[in-house]
Amino acid sequence: MNLSEIILDADRLFIGDEIPRDYLNEKQTKAKNLHALAYPLTKGEVVDLMHYAKEKQLVVIPSGANSGLAHATEAHEGELLIDFSKMNRILDFDLDTLTLSVEPGITIGEVQKYVQERGFFYPPDPASKHSTIGGNVATNAGGMRAVKYGTTRDYVRQMEVVLISGEVLEVGSLAIKNSSGYNLKHLFIGSEGTLGLTTRIDLKIIPLPTVNQSVIAAFPSLPVACEAVISIMRDGLDITACEFFERDAIALSEKMLNTPFPSQKGQAYLLMTFDGSSQESVLAEIARLEATIKTHAPEEIVLLNEADTVTAWKLRDSILTAVVELSENEPLDLSVPTNKIATLFNYTKEVEAKSGLRFVSFGHAGDGNIHACVLRGDLSEAEWAVKRHEVLSELYQYVHDIGGLPSAEHGIGLTKKPYFDQVFDSSYRHYLKQIKLAFDPENRLNPGKLV
Amino acid sequence: MNLSEIILDADRLFIGDEIPRDYLNEKQTKAKNLHALAYPLTKGEVVDLMHYAKEKQLVVIPSGANSGLAHATEAHEGELLIDFSKMNRILDFDLDTLTLSVEPGITIGEVQKYVQERGFFYPPDPASKHSTIGGNVATNAGGMRAVKYGTTRDYVRQMEVVLISGEVLEVGSLAIKNSSGYNLKHLFIGSEGTLGLTTRIDLKIIPLPTVNQSVIAAFPSLPVACEAVISIMRDGLDITACEFFERDAIALSEKMLNTPFPSQKGQAYLLMTFDGSSQESVLAEIARLEATIKTHAPEEIVLLNEADTVTAWKLRDSILTAVVELSENEPLDLSVPTNKIATLFNYTKEVEAKSGLRFVSFGHAGDGNIHACVLRGDLSEAEWAVKRHEVLSELYQYVHDIGGLPSAEHGIGLTKKPYFDQVFDSSYRHYLKQIKLAFDPENRLNPGKLV
Repeated sequence: MNLSEIILDADRLFIGDEIPRDYLNEKQTKAKNLHALAYPLTKGEVVDLMHYAKEKQLVVIPSGANSGLAHATEAHEGELLIDFSKMNRILDFDLDTLTLSVEPGITIGEVQKYVQERGFFYPPDPASKHSTIGGNVATNAGGMRAVKYGTTRDYVRQMEVVLISGEVLEVGSLAIKNSSGYNLKHLFIGSEGTLGLTTRIDLKIIPLPTVNQSVIAAFPSLPVACEAVISIMRDGLDITACEFFERDAIALSEKMLNTPFPSQKGQAYLLMTFDGSSQESVLAEIARLEATIKTHAPEEIVLLNEADTVTAWKLRDSILTAVVELSENEPLDLSVPTNKIATLFNYTKEVEAKSGLRFVSFGHAGDGNIHACVLRGDLSEAEWAVKRHEVLSELYQYVHDIGGLPSAEHGIGLTKKPYFDQVFDSSYRHYLKQIKLAFDPENRLNPGKLV
Repeated sequence: MNLSEIILDADRLFIGDEIPRDYLNEKQTKAKNLHALAYPLTKGEVVDLMHYAKEKQLVVIPSGANSGLAHATEAHEGELLIDFSKMNRILDFDLDTLTLSVEPGITIGEVQKYVQERGFFYPPDPASKHSTIGGNVATNAGGMRAVKYGTTRDYVRQMEVVLISGEVLEVGSLAIKNSSGYNLKHLFIGSEGTLGLTTRIDLKIIPLPTVNQSVIAAFPSLPVACEAVISIMRDGLDITACEFFERDAIALSEKMLNTPFPSQKGQAYLLMTFDGSSQESVLAEIARLEATIKTHAPEEIVLLNEADTVTAWKLRDSILTAVVELSENEPLDLSVPTNKIATLFNYTKEVEAKSGLRFVSFGHAGDGNIHACVLRGDLSEAEWAVKRHEVLSELYQYVHDIGGLPSAEHGIGLTKKPYFDQVFDSSYRHYLKQIKLAFDPENRLNPGKLV
């Protein structure tokens, strides 16, 4: 079958030079002379594309919103690009099992909106609302609410996956408990498009919490704030989000947005949310929170009204943009045990002193997910490339040594692969490669990423 | 190295005929002429045993408490049996990250007791309290509280695994968020000792709920009770356990224990528990529960006092024993979507009418986990074998067709393998085998089970 027999609509298939320049400039800046770009709409088309790629021995690269931060969907030369952004329908919302069936190209923002309008809730909340659910599954996307609700992994009941062979696997189940063979669902989640391509995802949906309350706690220093986080988790507080940042970091947002943060005391903050089904239960948890936090000598604890809630979260969400304005940069997404956040923070201060580079750190304290940014300062591009690699290489090793992981929620892709290979031993990586070969023996599906 | 150089204590190594007859009679009734039985105490010993087995090309069979119901640790002839029951220490309880590190041979009862005495909680609660945590991980054990708290999978942070090659992998992490490569942890969990042997497990522990309240709702029929369960889940009630059974089933327990169940109305029951950190929040949830259940015309709703709580759960827990008294039997552990419990129940009634065999069904309604028992009645052993296989073959196919799975929490092992092979297509099973071969290319680790 030719490509034009597989994808019948002209606006969904571009062969070789037909691929719009705009597309390449925006989404595939490093690609040249690609074989073709196809936008499938159905599982059948994806299967046929896989058979076509097999016949021509093409490398296949999947793509979604291209919002990923690990360059996990980068093409180079001669590949067949499959863009899932038009395969984006909601297929079914089953209220009996609370299951939303979607195609992979739908954005997370659309999923959240669809269920919320019906009184339900899809908790995973990555910052990019235009990222696709297929990409969210491929990276096991997390976000701020993971401390209470978990990550994407916890909300995938079942998926349909097309393998490079063209075979279709149904992995997972709408049945909740499963002790029926190796868990392929969990293997495909987080595999960054290297094992198979999802063509349908059945998501777990939950009822929408009706009450939300945000709280700020201000502390004299970040390590003290981190101690409070350990107590919060140990006391089993039912906390939905627990963000941390220094005054220095939120000050960047304050300056950019020209708005003050609702607390001006202290040098470090926890910005927290509690949610639930009644005002009483949420306030009861917050009373417990106050008791816990008071044992850590906070500068102040502020229960936010509606307007201040919006302001506080807007400022928090803008830290990254403010940092990027200072220095074009991709945030790291380090993951460490919750009792090692302060340890890592102190380490970055040492690196600052030694290297002269500035770090801005913030992130999800409740689950030890730290978005550290290393600022370029006034280094030349060449100096920056060398120094950045040197600093990151030591940083990733340090994270590994304190029991952490190179990626919490963005994935390894191409960007972190050198560090991934550095910190995981060859035996561990050997078995990842064996798994890759089990599903893709010719290494034709998104090769070079992750494994 | 000889075995006696690996395992130095005489009471931990039995070669060939030295293996105690009692052990074989009790734990390995089908085994004859085993190579050896070893009780390792350390990872190093397990590694050395694997190297020894490689040199001699022995099959290795792991074993724990032998409480499994799927015959997943059965040996036959010439194997090296590794019994983990003496490798059963608690290694560490870290209160900062709420992580309990244990060896695989510790029983689930001991884990629960240890943390509870310190004010903490390990939620997974399989019925066999003398099952080992290694076995719980191998089968992704669940139990009654899975509806709120999830299964064993949700409580394993990290594990140390020894492969058949003798290599040691550290899988998972104490860091909570993970988008750092294929998830080997989730692959090993539920793999029934066919991919590697766990030598250390770091468990997630949570604070102990201080308040518990059980409730009975009586309904005119099981299908009506099942409708109520769908509403309970849709309304997002924070329910810890939600068991279902018919009057006929609980009547078997009442007769055996000579004690009445705290409700005598209706033909089917839901026995539920709510837990939490305050009386108010638990009672608020129960008020919401009553409102939900009342829309399904219950015969009565009974909030249980302490004595009746003990009685009700004791009767529930005794259903299986009472069934086994009627007919030596292993309960099935079918898993279906929560809205298919009544469908499956109605199907078993049809099979009863057609086959003349009696079914007793009960189980965990909140997560669609049905422990159905097929009673032998007065069939001869030969008739029973034929008829049982015929009925089960059709039953497992039906469960598959309505979106269910053959095993919720007991595993596939040897017992369910024919049905597993029947309901999953050859392409799906091919990839499971490829994964098996990736870790165990010579098929020497617990072969013939699952894959």
